[in-house]
This record gives sequence, C-alpha cells and structure tokens, in this order.
Amino acid sequence: MLENITRAQLKSMTLKELLALSEEIREKITSTVLENGGHLSSNLGAVELSVALNFVFDFPHDKLVFDVGHQCYAHKLLTGRYKAFNTLRKKGGISGFPKREESEFDFYNVGHAGTSVSAALGIAKARDIKGENFNVIALIGDGSFNNGLIYEAFNSLRLLNTRILLIINDNGMSIAPTVGSMHEYLQLLSENDERKQKNARNSSIFGRFGFAYDGVYDGNDLEKMICKLQEVKERLKTESVILHVVTKKGKGYSFCEENPEMTHGISGGNSAETEYSQVLGSTLINLAEKDERIVAVTAAMTSSLGLSEFFGRYPERSVDVGICEEHATILCASMATQGLKPYYAVYSTFLQRSYDEIVIDICSQNLPVTLCVDRAGVSGADGETHQGVFDLSFLSSVPNLTIAVPKDVKEFENMLLFSADFNAPLAIRYPRSGRNLYGSHDKIVCGKWEKLLSGDGKYAVLACGERAITLAYKAAEILSEKNIRPTVINARFVKPLDRDMLDGLNDKFIITVEDNALIGGFGSLINGYFADKNGGKIIKNFAYSDKFIPQGGVSELMEDLGLSADALADYIIENEN
Amino acid sequence: MLENITRAQLKSMTLKELLALSEEIREKITSTVLENGGHLSSNLGAVELSVALNFVFDFPHDKLVFDVGHQCYAHKLLTGRYKAFNTLRKKGGISGFPKREESEFDFYNVGHAGTSVSAALGIAKARDIKGENFNVIALIGDGSFNNGLIYEAFNSLRLLNTRILLIINDNGMSIAPTVGSMHEYLQLLSENDERKQKNARNSSIFGRFGFAYDGVYDGNDLEKMICKLQEVKERLKTESVILHVVTKKGKGYSFCEENPEMTHGISGGNSAETEYSQVLGSTLINLAEKDERIVAVTAAMTSSLGLSEFFGRYPERSVDVGICEEHATILCASMATQGLKPYYAVYSTFLQRSYDEIVIDICSQNLPVTLCVDRAGVSGADGETHQGVFDLSFLSSVPNLTIAVPKDVKEFENMLLFSADFNAPLAIRYPRSGRNLYGSHDKIVCGKWEKLLSGDGKYAVLACGERAITLAYKAAEILSEKNIRPTVINARFVKPLDRDMLDGLNDKFIITVEDNALIGGFGSLINGYFADKNGGKIIKNFAYSDKFIPQGGVSELMEDLGLSADALADYIIENEN
Repeated sequence: MLENITRAQLKSMTLKELLALSEEIREKITSTVLENGGHLSSNLGAVELSVALNFVFDFPHDKLVFDVGHQCYAHKLLTGRYKAFNTLRKKGGISGFPKREESEFDFYNVGHAGTSVSAALGIAKARDIKGENFNVIALIGDGSFNNGLIYEAFNSLRLLNTRILLIINDNGMSIAPTVGSMHEYLQLLSENDERKQKNARNSSIFGRFGFAYDGVYDGNDLEKMICKLQEVKERLKTESVILHVVTKKGKGYSFCEENPEMTHGISGGNSAETEYSQVLGSTLINLAEKDERIVAVTAAMTSSLGLSEFFGRYPERSVDVGICEEHATILCASMATQGLKPYYAVYSTFLQRSYDEIVIDICSQNLPVTLCVDRAGVSGADGETHQGVFDLSFLSSVPNLTIAVPKDVKEFENMLLFSADFNAPLAIRYPRSGRNLYGSHDKIVCGKWEKLLSGDGKYAVLACGERAITLAYKAAEILSEKNIRPTVINARFVKPLDRDMLDGLNDKFIITVEDNALIGGFGSLINGYFADKNGGKIIKNFAYSDKFIPQGGVSELMEDLGLSADALADYIIENEN
Repeated sequence: MLENITRAQLKSMTLKELLALSEEIREKITSTVLENGGHLSSNLGAVELSVALNFVFDFPHDKLVFDVGHQCYAHKLLTGRYKAFNTLRKKGGISGFPKREESEFDFYNVGHAGTSVSAALGIAKARDIKGENFNVIALIGDGSFNNGLIYEAFNSLRLLNTRILLIINDNGMSIAPTVGSMHEYLQLLSENDERKQKNARNSSIFGRFGFAYDGVYDGNDLEKMICKLQEVKERLKTESVILHVVTKKGKGYSFCEENPEMTHGISGGNSAETEYSQVLGSTLINLAEKDERIVAVTAAMTSSLGLSEFFGRYPERSVDVGICEEHATILCASMATQGLKPYYAVYSTFLQRSYDEIVIDICSQNLPVTLCVDRAGVSGADGETHQGVFDLSFLSSVPNLTIAVPKDVKEFENMLLFSADFNAPLAIRYPRSGRNLYGSHDKIVCGKWEKLLSGDGKYAVLACGERAITLAYKAAEILSEKNIRPTVINARFVKPLDRDMLDGLNDKFIITVEDNALIGGFGSLINGYFADKNGGKIIKNFAYSDKFIPQGGVSELMEDLGLSADALADYIIENEN
C-alpha cells in the first residue's frame, strides 16, 4: 500500500487503513535501518505523528521543518521515497536527514540541534512578507529543546508577528536521556498529578513568549493525533501553538523500546577497529585517578564519546549539559580559571557551534582546556551536515591553541598523557576508529613530529592523522615496487609545526595528506611555511577540495575525493617521469 | 577619596561617604570616556550597583563575572585602577572590558554577549569540586539576556547542583532598545499594576529553572542595593538567586540619560572618514525599492550598522532579533528558501557566533544570503575580544561561499549592486570607515580582480581591502623614489581567486597584504595557489601573526603588527639588494 501511495490516496484513507499504513512504515524503517544503519528508535517513535501530519496538512503547500532530522524517515516514506528507501544513507542514495535537493517535501536541511523554530519562523515570516497563505510546522524532540537557539527563536516570535505550529515530540531522550530543567518542566506538564500539572500549565513558560500551549497527548495514538492536528490547524489561523506530545522512542520494536540509547543510531559498518572513544574513556579515568583537577564535559553524547564509565566513576567531576555546545565550552573555560583541568569531548561537526567560545573564552584567556574532537574527518553516512572536515580549518587560525592529531589509538593515549601536564588550550582531533599501530610510541613532545620512513630525499610525505598515515604507508608500498622511496612523516602537531624537521627536509617534493578540507587545513600551513623560502619546492596537498561532502562509506568517499594511496603514488610516479 | 581607596576603607565607609564616592566615580568615568572614547551610559548606570557589590562582597575572594563588560568601569575604579584609568582603551592601558591579566579583581574576560551565567556556573561548580567557599555573582544587562546562552546555562543550574547570584541590570537597552518577549517579561515584572506584577512573579519563568527570583529594585538607590545584597548574600548559602534591578542608562549625565543609544559607545577617533555602514544603508534602500525580495536582519546593532533608515522605511522587511546572532543567521537562511533575498549585517567579531549556521544553514543549502561583515580587520580600542581579524580565516574554508572585499566605499556600493543579482551565499567584509577612492569603479564581476598599478614585472602586490590597498599605494610611492615599480592589484575577491590574473603574473615576488590573520586568510589561499606550480616564486604574506591583538588605535596597531607601508617597501628594497 505504501509503495506507490499518492497524496490523494493518503487523504482519503480510513483510520484503519492509516493504522495499517503505519505498521507498514514501521516495518520498512526497521528492516532498512538494520541493513543500512541509521537512526532507528527516534524514527520509530514518530511514525503515527508523521502519518497524522501528512493526513491533516497539505504538503508541500504547507511546510514542515524537522529539528536535527532524526525523525524524518516516516515522512520520507510517505512522500515518494519508498522505492529508493533501500539506498538510505548509501552513496548517492536517500539521505538520513531532510534534504531539499532530494524532494519538494523536504523544506529545510538540518543536522545540528535547535534550528527548527528559527527556520519555521523565517519561512512563516517570508510567507507573510510575500502575502502567501500556508501553514508552517516545526517538529522538535525534547533533546534539541535544550539548545539555546530555541530561546532566541521564542524571544522573537511576537517581534516577527507571525504564526507557526511547534510540535514538541517528547520521548525523554536526546541520544542519551534528556537532562536539564526544561526537560523537568516538560515532565511536569505531563504529570499524572492533576494539581501539579494544572499549576505548570497555568504558568506556562511558553505563554510568556506568545505561544498557546496545548498538551500533553499520546503521539503514538494516531486517531488522537489526527483530531488534535485538525483542531490546531484551525487555531493556527490566529495564533502560534505549541502541541506537546509524548511518544515512545523505538515504539513497536521491543528491543528498541527497552534500549533507546543503544538503538538511537545503528551503525551499518564493521567493528573490527578500535574506537578512539574507548581510549579516551579509559585513559581519562586513569588520569583522573591521579589528578583531582580533571573534569569531563559533554553535550548529550557521553556514551558515544566513550565517557560513560568516567561519568559513573566520577559523577562529581562530570557534566553532561545536554545539546548545549556553547555553554559546555564556557563551563570548561570558567572551570579552568579556577585551576581545574577540563576535557570537553565533542564530535568535530558539533564543535562548530563552539567556535566563538573557543576563540574568546578558551583561547583569548589562554586556559588549559582540552578539546577532544571525535569523528574528525569524513564521518560517512550522515552526509553533508555531519562530516568533520572543517575543524583543522577553523581551529588553526585561533591563537594560543595547540592542535594535535594522533597517528593511531596508542598515540592518542600518549597525547592524552601529554595533555595532562600541558597548561594551555589544546585540541586533539581523531576519527571514530582505527585499525593499525604505526611505528614506535614515544613520549609526545609539543610540536615534535616523527619520521616513520626514511626516503631517497626527493619526496617527503607529511601525513596528518591515522587515515593519512595509512594512505602514506600504502603508497610507499606501491612505490617500493618502482624503487621509489618517499620519506613518510607523522605530522602529529598541526600547530605548532615542527620547524626543525621542516627545515631539514631537502626533498624537492613536499606532499601533505590530511582528512580535512584543503583550505585552511594542515597543508595550507605547510604551504605558508615554504612560501617565502626560495627553495624551489613543489608542494602538493592531498585534502578535500572546496565542496560539501555527501553521504557514503568513509573509504569510498575518501577515494572519490582523491584521498587514496593510488592517487598519492600516482602523483609521485608522474613526477618521476 | 577614590584615588587610593583600600578595600578596608571602602568597607568602613558610611552611606554618605559611599554616595560621595559614587559621584566621584561618575565624574571620573564621564571625563575619561569623553576623552578616550568608550562605553559611557551603560557604565554610568551601574555605578551604585558596583559600589554596593564591592561594599557587600569580599572580592577577590568572592567572584564577579560581567556579561559583555559594558558595565565594568566603576568596578575597575574601585579595585585599584583609578590612577591608570586615563589610559582606558589606549595601547598598553586599562582595558574597556574585564581582563584577568589586568587585575585579580577581574575574574573572567568577556566581550560577546550571554556568557556570564555559564561562566559563573563554571566557577561555582569548580568551587564545589574543590570544596572551597565563596560567592559567585554574574551581572548581566537585559540586552544580553536575550542570548541563547542564557537559556543553556539556566537549563543546567539544577543539573550542576550549585549556587550563584545572578543580577539582571535592566535598563531597557541593549545598545539599541532591547527587543523580544523576555524583555517584555522583565517589564511585566516591573509593572506598577500590582495584580499584573504579582501574576508575573507567581509564575516566574526563573523559578522553573531553579532560581529564587527577587525584584524589582532601583539599582541606582545605593542604600537599597546594599541592604538587598546583604540579604541576598545570606540566601546564597542555600539557593541561587536572581536579583532584578532597574537602572537608568546614562544616570547622572543628562545628555546620556536622554540619548542612551547614541552615548552607549563614544568613539574617541576622528570622523573625517566615510562610514561603510552609511553606504550599506543607502544602497540597500535603493535596492529594496526595486526588489521586493530584499530583507534586512540585524542582531541589536541596527544603527551602528547603518540600517536605521532602512528599518524605518521598510519595517515589514526588517528584523532586529536582539543579541541572537545564531538565530538571525537561520532566519536569513530560511527566508531565502522561500525566495527572499536576506542581508544579514553584523560586526566581524560577532559573526563568529554564527559559524555553524553559516556552514550548515546558509552554505550547505547554497542559499542567497548576503553577509555584510562590518568592523572587519583590526577594530581598535575594544581589544582582543573585538578585533575582526578572523573572518577571512573561518569563512574561506566554507564551500559555496563567495567572499568579496571592497577597495573603497564606492566599490562597496558596487559590490552591493552585484549582490542583488547574485544567487548564492556571499560575504562582503569591510572596515568601519575609509577615506579614499582608488582607481576607476567598474561593474563587479564575480572572481575578477583589478590591476591598479602596472609594475616592472618583478613584484606583484596583491592587496585585499581598503586598508591593504592604502598601504600598497603608499609603499609604491616610497619605492618610486628608488625607481622600483611594483604591480598593485585590488584582490577584491578572496573566493574565488582570479585565476586568470594569477596565471598571468610573471613577477618573481608575490606579496599579499590583508587586514586579517595570516593563518587561513587571503595570503594562505595565494600560497596554496602557487604551492604546486614549479614557478620558483617567492610569496610574502603581510597579515597578522598568530597572536591575539590587544587594544590600541587602528593605525598604531597595524604598524606594530608589521602592516605598514614602510614594512612593505622595506621588504621589497631588501630583495632588490
């Protein structure tokens, strides 16, 4: 029924048919995600809500903005993407996130938390300016609702003098359970105790900002949702409404219902590699044992960042602030002013939210905060909004910041040991996982690189990070068959550069390799280093060219983007001839 | 009395003496700011509050965190900086903002809005972890209170399980009058109508987050403030408190009281130059006349950005969202999805807050939003937290973004005309003001540079932006006396580079000049351009080295940092010999 469903068919369905449709969607999501990886339990929870929204509203005339986008699968299946759905998260396939390029039923691209209310307001305001008439809906989970952007958007609702429907889908979870007072308030609104609930409603925070609040309803009750949305659609003609619904994360798939955090994101990949996050967790526990100043801060990703055990062991020295990356950064900076030694662990893509606070709060004050930048480099199936390929670029120009990139998990451990005594801002960036150990593992000295392979003196490969070093080794293997021996250097500090080693390089060709954007990254620092030296060197940068990187497998993407051992070897061979 | 006041003397003063002291402070602030420039009316409003805080609390044992820092002058005068106060905002002098390096009575460096509650919470949490015992106070104006960071911090108060005092100094102004629902709520709390006020208090938003709310009091009433703070100090032993006070911006200086926006910041500099902001305002009005899609968005700086008249003329197409840079960016992106043509005008330093939204919302969706980046380059007397020297670095690696830098105000106008038909993300960065017009003024073509002076073929100076071009012209003048003629190029697009022109440069020496950080800026793109070409070129970058730039005059700082016509000419002369 779902496969070829038209809007007209959907609109004319009976409740019974819609319920059957919901089951079909649920099955399709489950089977696809178990195969391809993706966000399972959040999407399962939003099935009935998505069916009801598509039944009641007139998309694409009306507009729907998702927050983060971990709830958009059912909407995709209902809007023409059933047949292609088996390509979910694959190269060239259906995106795991809303994507305007993919369908006219996707209205706003998302990936980072808290943007939906602002985006819905902008779309509604544009509608008003253009004198058009349609409904604008933002759908947000309670996890994203912690983000400061929500408050900024709320604050301007009356100012913008427009109308939107905001649906809070409250499942009590970000990826981890939702934390913070706003979450407690949402819970209060859902209280069984009628007196408490009434009290919370009468003094609705939302009313202060100009929203009419309506809740709490069971978002998995399809009939109820349809009635409610029809009613709210009428109210939208005159006012902005918050509809507060509660859904069960992982609904309909008992393993998910019981393990919502574990099944939030299902990885399609192999797990033969060691996760850098595990090394972070265990090393930080060891360090914290000896050093009482060490504290760990996360923004709603404690488990994925490898810090669950640390949090269990040192609850008084651990803070998960929810999806509040800016606040987390300032907490670290301010704790450091008091002599503590904070570690802020975060995915590269989400660190982008902290850019200003890294500049002003951490680095302009030269405070000893360590940024543990996980999922750096191409991150794969989540696509454009989640690739961690900009961190070296936006971090490298920040004064006072030291930037380290480990060659493997063991070196990552050594870098963490190094960080413990390092009394200034430090960022360590690493991919999700790695497989190999390279060379020996000496103590880390700030700004000192390591020569891994000695070459013939014509080609020096400066490789930054495990993925780059893997390529360099493989290229060296290919080249050895042609009797070409490049020097391979583990450029483990992007800042400061190892000037002694650079000065000693007599090779004509300097080749940089990194899992980061070309512009502003490691290679560009090397270009700058040699720019005014009249050495006649030729520098070739292997890095990502100036484009957003779509979804796909990590190796597949790297190869497509010109980061492969073959490309590296070919460049050298070409210059031999 | 103020000049040599000790903590002990202050603590033993009578109310009458303290009142006299306040007057002395007010006079000192006024006379100094009229001489040196600085933030006048916000500081005048906070005199009694600062005296009371210093009388009641035990600094530096207790800690005080300012938000933004436009209210810190009285605190500085009370804590050992009277004698040096005539150096306020001067090179090497007293900072206009709290600065830890300057005094043990400055606890946290600030400059951008909304950080104080997070910082106070971090300091308080560190205190708890270390088992120490002191009071932590955050002082915030109602303007900063709009920022999303506040919500993120509020949300984690209970989570952190700590105690702070938050003083909201409500003067109804950011720099412009404060906007938004939170401001309306603060006003409601100050209502004369007792029923309304009581209703607002009973349902205090702040209570939901775990603060005990106490207000509203006259913050200019010294006696009242002392009593209140003494009372609150007791309460702080068991709970977190919000103390809501109302002060008069510009208090005690009638011109300021009547013109708080105009006197928020007093410029110490000359005004013989043309402000780029004026050009923005008038050009955008002309464009908007013909193009109904054009909308303008600001974050609390409408007047300083030159957009007051635009806002008056097109109120329905203008939005000032308050100090909410992230939200402003998403509003622009989302309005653009509906076919509008948004211009987001913002200071370079504050654009840092929007980095993630520029990447994800504007550029990954390739939407035609124009960023008008004012106060780019060294901005002068506000110091480290306000220099606009990172924008080229953090923007240049963002895919899909075109970056333009006008050579003068007339070219800025032409770039705005260009922007009107440009259907992709665009950033135009410019300093506050300029004096000269350079060369002819042709129509702007994307990625095309302009040759201003033709040289001998040995030295090509690629100058980016008016300040760089001014230096290049002056250097050319110096060099002409030695019969050296460099080519001078107006590199008006940082992205895309003018590859045709670059390919045509046969000069051995390529010299880049820009009013931006060296790392990741214009020069680094040029280094990258030539890196793998075996042309034996020597490239010299004139830009700011990897350090935070302190306060000082613009020209003075540029010269100190090696950006001067002499340095440029000297480099060339050295290479001649």
